[in-house]
Amino acid sequence: MSPARLYRILHPETTDGAARIFRGVHHAMVGIGIGIMFADSVAPWRRVCGPLLDLGFGLVCAFFCAEYGLRFAAAAGAPGAEHRGAGRARLAWAASPGGLFDLLGVFPALLDPLFGPYRAGFFALVWALKPIRYAAGLKRLGRVLTHSAEALLSVLLGFGIVLVIAASLAYLVERQIQPRAFGSIPAALWWAIATLTTTGYGDVVPQTVVGRILAGIVMVTGILVFALWAGILASGYGEESRRREFLRIWQIVHDVPFFCDVGTAVIAEVAQLLRPRDVPAGAVVFHRGERGERMYFIASGEVEIRLAPQPVRLGVGQFFGELALLTGAPRTATVVAVRPSTLLALDLVDFHELMARRPELARIIRAEAERRLAAPEVPEG
Amino acid sequence: MSPARLYRILHPETTDGAARIFRGVHHAMVGIGIGIMFADSVAPWRRVCGPLLDLGFGLVCAFFCAEYGLRFAAAAGAPGAEHRGAGRARLAWAASPGGLFDLLGVFPALLDPLFGPYRAGFFALVWALKPIRYAAGLKRLGRVLTHSAEALLSVLLGFGIVLVIAASLAYLVERQIQPRAFGSIPAALWWAIATLTTTGYGDVVPQTVVGRILAGIVMVTGILVFALWAGILASGYGEESRRREFLRIWQIVHDVPFFCDVGTAVIAEVAQLLRPRDVPAGAVVFHRGERGERMYFIASGEVEIRLAPQPVRLGVGQFFGELALLTGAPRTATVVAVRPSTLLALDLVDFHELMARRPELARIIRAEAERRLAAPEVPEG
Amino acid sequence: MSPARLYRILHPETTDGAARIFRGVHHAMVGIGIGIMFADSVAPWRRVCGPLLDLGFGLVCAFFCAEYGLRFAAAAGAPGAEHRGAGRARLAWAASPGGLFDLLGVFPALLDPLFGPYRAGFFALVWALKPIRYAAGLKRLGRVLTHSAEALLSVLLGFGIVLVIAASLAYLVERQIQPRAFGSIPAALWWAIATLTTTGYGDVVPQTVVGRILAGIVMVTGILVFALWAGILASGYGEESRRREFLRIWQIVHDVPFFCDVGTAVIAEVAQLLRPRDVPAGAVVFHRGERGERMYFIASGEVEIRLAPQPVRLGVGQFFGELALLTGAPRTATVVAVRPSTLLALDLVDFHELMARRPELARIIRAEAERRLAAPEVPEG
Amino acid sequence: MSPARLYRILHPETTDGAARIFRGVHHAMVGIGIGIMFADSVAPWRRVCGPLLDLGFGLVCAFFCAEYGLRFAAAAGAPGAEHRGAGRARLAWAASPGGLFDLLGVFPALLDPLFGPYRAGFFALVWALKPIRYAAGLKRLGRVLTHSAEALLSVLLGFGIVLVIAASLAYLVERQIQPRAFGSIPAALWWAIATLTTTGYGDVVPQTVVGRILAGIVMVTGILVFALWAGILASGYGEESRRREFLRIWQIVHDVPFFCDVGTAVIAEVAQLLRPRDVPAGAVVFHRGERGERMYFIASGEVEIRLAPQPVRLGVGQFFGELALLTGAPRTATVVAVRPSTLLALDLVDFHELMARRPELARIIRAEAERRLAAPEVPEG
Repeated sequence: MSPARLYRILHPETTDGAARIFRGVHHAMVGIGIGIMFADSVAPWRRVCGPLLDLGFGLVCAFFCAEYGLRFAAAAGAPGAEHRGAGRARLAWAASPGGLFDLLGVFPALLDPLFGPYRAGFFALVWALKPIRYAAGLKRLGRVLTHSAEALLSVLLGFGIVLVIAASLAYLVERQIQPRAFGSIPAALWWAIATLTTTGYGDVVPQTVVGRILAGIVMVTGILVFALWAGILASGYGEESRRREFLRIWQIVHDVPFFCDVGTAVIAEVAQLLRPRDVPAGAVVFHRGERGERMYFIASGEVEIRLAPQPVRLGVGQFFGELALLTGAPRTATVVAVRPSTLLALDLVDFHELMARRPELARIIRAEAERRLAAPEVPEG
Repeated sequence: MSPARLYRILHPETTDGAARIFRGVHHAMVGIGIGIMFADSVAPWRRVCGPLLDLGFGLVCAFFCAEYGLRFAAAAGAPGAEHRGAGRARLAWAASPGGLFDLLGVFPALLDPLFGPYRAGFFALVWALKPIRYAAGLKRLGRVLTHSAEALLSVLLGFGIVLVIAASLAYLVERQIQPRAFGSIPAALWWAIATLTTTGYGDVVPQTVVGRILAGIVMVTGILVFALWAGILASGYGEESRRREFLRIWQIVHDVPFFCDVGTAVIAEVAQLLRPRDVPAGAVVFHRGERGERMYFIASGEVEIRLAPQPVRLGVGQFFGELALLTGAPRTATVVAVRPSTLLALDLVDFHELMARRPELARIIRAEAERRLAAPEVPEG
Repeated sequence: MSPARLYRILHPETTDGAARIFRGVHHAMVGIGIGIMFADSVAPWRRVCGPLLDLGFGLVCAFFCAEYGLRFAAAAGAPGAEHRGAGRARLAWAASPGGLFDLLGVFPALLDPLFGPYRAGFFALVWALKPIRYAAGLKRLGRVLTHSAEALLSVLLGFGIVLVIAASLAYLVERQIQPRAFGSIPAALWWAIATLTTTGYGDVVPQTVVGRILAGIVMVTGILVFALWAGILASGYGEESRRREFLRIWQIVHDVPFFCDVGTAVIAEVAQLLRPRDVPAGAVVFHRGERGERMYFIASGEVEIRLAPQPVRLGVGQFFGELALLTGAPRTATVVAVRPSTLLALDLVDFHELMARRPELARIIRAEAERRLAAPEVPEG
Repeated sequence: MSPARLYRILHPETTDGAARIFRGVHHAMVGIGIGIMFADSVAPWRRVCGPLLDLGFGLVCAFFCAEYGLRFAAAAGAPGAEHRGAGRARLAWAASPGGLFDLLGVFPALLDPLFGPYRAGFFALVWALKPIRYAAGLKRLGRVLTHSAEALLSVLLGFGIVLVIAASLAYLVERQIQPRAFGSIPAALWWAIATLTTTGYGDVVPQTVVGRILAGIVMVTGILVFALWAGILASGYGEESRRREFLRIWQIVHDVPFFCDVGTAVIAEVAQLLRPRDVPAGAVVFHRGERGERMYFIASGEVEIRLAPQPVRLGVGQFFGELALLTGAPRTATVVAVRPSTLLALDLVDFHELMARRPELARIIRAEAERRLAAPEVPEG
């Protein structure tokens, strides 16, 4: 297998069969590995089925060894690697954070005896991080956090200042009565953080009146920290999700011939309104007689309109379901996807807004709808 | 009773008398049933009034049996069932999740003795799910969660990774000192989840300095998880509620003749600004002399303007209260609903924005206002 | 004193001296009354200074009695009361929720001996509600909650369903091991609610593996409930605060002659951009040499521009500070309020947006700026 | 060193070398000082290395003394101080909150023996506040809190009312069974606040059925308080961050000659869309063959386009990367920053929106793109 093919299989965004299978096995191995480490740490299980656990551990390590080798080989197939030469590309990967991390998940297994009782904790920890590479959603959340990093860190700084102040005050107030729990500022800090995060273990509780008033203020401040972070992230996430959704749909809209005819400016506008919807083969898009709340454009696949004389099929770039929006009447036919399809749904609210703003688009859709009404054998959903 | 009529009565969105009564009885039965199961689980109550509880349990089960039968019969009256035939429609319902769930709430009662002491827990659990079918609000929240599912699950994955890492580290750090609470990773996981969610039972608390620093980090991460979910849902909920409200008002606006005259494009715009307000018969919409903050369109019902020479009545499609917005003067007459009415309120802020953007609408409203001023017997509120 | 005058003094929104004094005394009495009830409930304090506390209690009760009398008398001065007659207006008030509540805070004092040890708790409770009448902010929050009530209640219903399910499952799973804490569903419910709200008292903790997994799921669900409510309220509050701020400024803008000249459509637009700012007499609005980030319109009061030859004064309806926005240069003079003033600030960002959208407004402001530049004795800030 | 120069070095927003070094030393001293106070409060450490801690304390105090002296001297160099005279400016600073606070962090050290065992707590507390002066992010958060202060305080008032009511009810309900924990309203208040903030220490737990129902309601109300604050702050933070970002970019956009040609109205619009991005020297802006998701304007610095015949350099005011947006083809060249640069990124989504709204800008960018395509030696990224 060529490095380029290997690279594609190992890449998180590849969607063909081999890549899916590899990912499935990888995730299963991570799950099994962590499960074995969990079991390994429970003394009775360790006693009863120790050899079995060691065998499993060996297998999982072997898989991750093989994965390391594959990734090392695949590094030569990465885009741009041909310019640098296979060897340098591989070494660059081995020295990259991803490469070093993969090594960390494998190499210590060779030194297994040295780890002794710490093995279970160490590997559960390292392997738990492996799925991050494949989690596109986590990367997106990371981007939101990065964009809002300054504000989040400011809250954290304020959090730290409140912590030190609360711990100092509690130390001053409570040390006489509870010399064990509040006998030093670091000890009081333990109380302060459990209170400020509203965790409230209850192992350390202020007893004096002043200490309890202080605790009340700290708790309320803790709620404020929660609320500030929530506010910052609500703002940041809304922005990020708007951008991402747009890029995804923009890509799809380009494949719909219908939109190519109406010009670039309209595409940008339409792309912000459409919601992609993946339907499996055989799925019913809508039933006859339902109220029409959205129309659909076909981005990929094929649908069948179940009309009376004989069903009609529509393919990529065609649209359906617009008549119910224009007339307000219920759906006149059931529509079923005959192949796995991606539809772009345009909601009633956005449909009418768009019609009002873009007369040229309205004209095309109305003309098509009238043509379909005149020729009843043409579907209109 | 025909299956179609039965279907309508059992349908969650039907609003006529029979459907309301059925819903009331249904909800009462769910409440009584859960209450009986609660009482059944309390040993002293069980001892004292066991036969009474069994009788109540029997009655509730009988009601749910009857409900099952009715739903089975009604399935033949569902829209589209005539095409498939009554028998197949009924079997399809019985095999649907709703049908199976209803069976689960009834059938085991026949095997009552087999359940023994688990009866109370089982039925309280199953019956608690019954109101979901009638809770439109929950369905809407479900839709918001579904739309944001990817992001919420990403947070959950990150949550899981943090959990495993925290548990592994706590196991490594605390196991020597607290072999019972942190003696295995699964045991440490129990501490980790109670800490990461900031629940903080306090039954397991780290004792080492490193363990407490770790706990502090886990608590702060827990706040971040809260905040991320809140941010994601704030964004998703805002979007969903905008769409839903629009659909509801769009339906109402179509019944106001006034808007039909001004064209479809304006309706879409106006519908986004109006807030529907249901007023009972005899309710005062506004008092004379109040400051005018909104005008109203009548979507259904009838109102009376209490003018000096003699009161005037306005019906569906007419509007009132616009003069106070145009002149800034206080209301010149009290307005009372003479029948239960649905009014569409247009706020001062939106009124002026709309006037600026839609001159044709402004012209109609101004013309009407001038006509009313000229002919003082015509109400203007 | 006439009932109308009395009514005005007692009304929460009146701002003259007598009303302010009454409010101050009222709030002080509420504070003192609650404080006395607190002290009354502490046995040692009760023993030591019981007569003093009883005296204070008597005084506070006397004040609230007098307040009740005043409100009863003032009801005849409410707007619209003249139509109904003084007596009926007073009885209507006495039977209204507010009147009944005020009676509740006073009448039982006459039956004091009957209350015995419950007095402290009862009056602290009733009097704590008294400030609500004067808290405009709470009314606004109430409006936000009312607008979002349906969604919030749906979350609450889901919360209740999860509670019952969690309690039922915990009862099934834990009752064998912990018959005291999980011996009945109501008992398990206590654990469930402390866990679902992430309070985590720790008095009841599941011991079985299944019970702990269940607890983990309940905790995570609790976070979701938090997040849903936060999301719903973020959406609702943003909407409400937009509307309220607009109404407040709209009222002020009407008093600025400058805006009257540019037409109603512009006022609606400008009012959405301006931020009112109250400055006391003698306060510096901005210093010479600072970077100009906003311009100001004078809604009430008077300001002095400290220019070199001699200072210039500007009054209601005039504007200043626009030159720094147009040229980007620092402020050329210090501006001081000579009387308590209300300024409407227009931020740099909104200023340029407005200039671009409203050429007629831009023309007026530019003309004025040029005139001021040509005649250096005219201030421009 | 002149007072003006000193003032600049001590000012939080100065970015030259001396100011950075001073800030670094200042923050290190704060960290060391707090660390010493922490260690000082731990009895065994105090015993072992007491003299060392005292020495460190002395050094930190000496630094803060010197800082006080420097700030006192620098006050004469503040803008506007020349009008008032150096002496008065210095006294004004010494009497300002900042001056008094700095004195508080230094002066008590002279009275060290008087403090005795309270020293550690006192200084940790005072010094923890020192970084606030330099934390621009905290000031911004403070501004958000100030803008939303009214709503946040209303929630706090409601919080207080609920607290008193909950404490009063719990006192009435639980005092018979738990005379220690609920024997007075202030005692019950301690339970109420730990429950309402969902902290749940668990040291005080209601035992009666009514008390537990009350506790459940209090917990749910606590969630509502969280959610209200989060909602208010989400709304306030979104607004504030929009304004701040705009001001920052507006400043940068003014330095890009390209935008000067297209008129002021467009600048305001563009400034809202651009995201500034600082890149170090040698950093790759994008690789050849990547998908083009944004174009860049150079606000400062210089970049090199790695084209085949020979690389081309672009400087301040030029743009690149627009061709990939116009054609949808991958990047045709790698772009590297040759000096530390500030780029303004325009995202795909905003690019197309802007093109549609501003034909004159679209024309300029298209013309430049065509010119570059015609003359292949000119870079286009």
